[in-house]
Amino acid sequence: MSELAAPTRRYDYVTDGQEIYRRSFAMIRDESDLRGLPTGLHTVATRIIHAAGDVAITSEIAAHPEVVAAARSALSNGAPIITDSQMLASGVTRRRLPADNEVLCTLRDERVPGLAMQWDTTRAAAAVSLWGDRLEGAVVAIGNAPTALFHLLELILDGGPRPAAIVGMPVGFVGSAESKVALAEHRLADGEQIPWLVVHGRRGGSAMAAAALNALAHEDELA
Amino acid sequence: MSELAAPTRRYDYVTDGQEIYRRSFAMIRDESDLRGLPTGLHTVATRIIHAAGDVAITSEIAAHPEVVAAARSALSNGAPIITDSQMLASGVTRRRLPADNEVLCTLRDERVPGLAMQWDTTRAAAAVSLWGDRLEGAVVAIGNAPTALFHLLELILDGGPRPAAIVGMPVGFVGSAESKVALAEHRLADGEQIPWLVVHGRRGGSAMAAAALNALAHEDELA
Repeated sequence: MSELAAPTRRYDYVTDGQEIYRRSFAMIRDESDLRGLPTGLHTVATRIIHAAGDVAITSEIAAHPEVVAAARSALSNGAPIITDSQMLASGVTRRRLPADNEVLCTLRDERVPGLAMQWDTTRAAAAVSLWGDRLEGAVVAIGNAPTALFHLLELILDGGPRPAAIVGMPVGFVGSAESKVALAEHRLADGEQIPWLVVHGRRGGSAMAAAALNALAHEDELA
Repeated sequence: MSELAAPTRRYDYVTDGQEIYRRSFAMIRDESDLRGLPTGLHTVATRIIHAAGDVAITSEIAAHPEVVAAARSALSNGAPIITDSQMLASGVTRRRLPADNEVLCTLRDERVPGLAMQWDTTRAAAAVSLWGDRLEGAVVAIGNAPTALFHLLELILDGGPRPAAIVGMPVGFVGSAESKVALAEHRLADGEQIPWLVVHGRRGGSAMAAAALNALAHEDELA
């Protein structure tokens, strides 16, 4: 380490991480209109807007009224987080998790390519079927593939395991918006819904989904 | 695997991955105006727009004229990819890399917290100083921290190692836009620039940066 020295400061920028967060969240509160969202969702929404770098995303955020309580309670009780992509799994801040929760992604399971071919679907969708019983009570986040979200809903509507909450934020031009409408409108056989959180429209992605998970995992905005 | 069966299809959606890509890229070409960008950058821009889920990002994409050639040549010759976050490293599609290139992220190096404290900067910025000689000729991508991009420029302007290309796509409300302007306007002692690619403004992030890297790594849009 003796060779390492900080480079010459040539630009004017804030270098205190906590101060960057504080200023960022203050700017988001100033510029965004969170009035359409329940108060309990404001911290989660702020984190999503922060990850998007865009207050215009605010109007696309929608949620089931119980999603924050359901996800937080599940995670406190040790439920796993299950994701559709390795990138999203990497974005989960482990030190924010209340019970050293497992973060699971089955996309690279060796059975995935064969199942995808057999079922004529994407690997992301086939990977959902490998969640098996781990899905029961889990907090699920889809940040990439609309087909994974559709497949998950179909599994659940077939009477499969029920997760505690679903973060539905696939991104893209084909099927993304439709998959999020399907999540927001799904009804189980008993007429109930799995609590859900979405960014409607084409936008979404691993970064926003990870931000949502990190906010659901821990109450404190700056932790 | 005998227990696994595809769930009942209940929604109407495209399940062929290649077809999803094809339709997505066709929609992007229909809806976005790429005329402001050099032809050689169209595939890369299409991938960035795809990751953003938003054609409005097009006008924020800007690049040095040599960035595609410089990055592709470096990667073909085995240069490493260096990133500011584990999430971005996870987003690099390994099978697209032309030379089984190493993907390096030093954020979790044990020296990082101490250096960040000593230098009064963020861990993301301190981690950049640990790239050392690996930086010479590398393809660098910043998808999270503006402080990492500023720190990188300061290292280079101090006469440090010169990467082959820099993808500058930090996201956020504090310093993000400014760091990308600094990258686009930097000048080395010889008056030259390191070839660069940015998404101007507050938007950016790991997903767009990974999409850019994946497009720079491999010419074929659908590979």
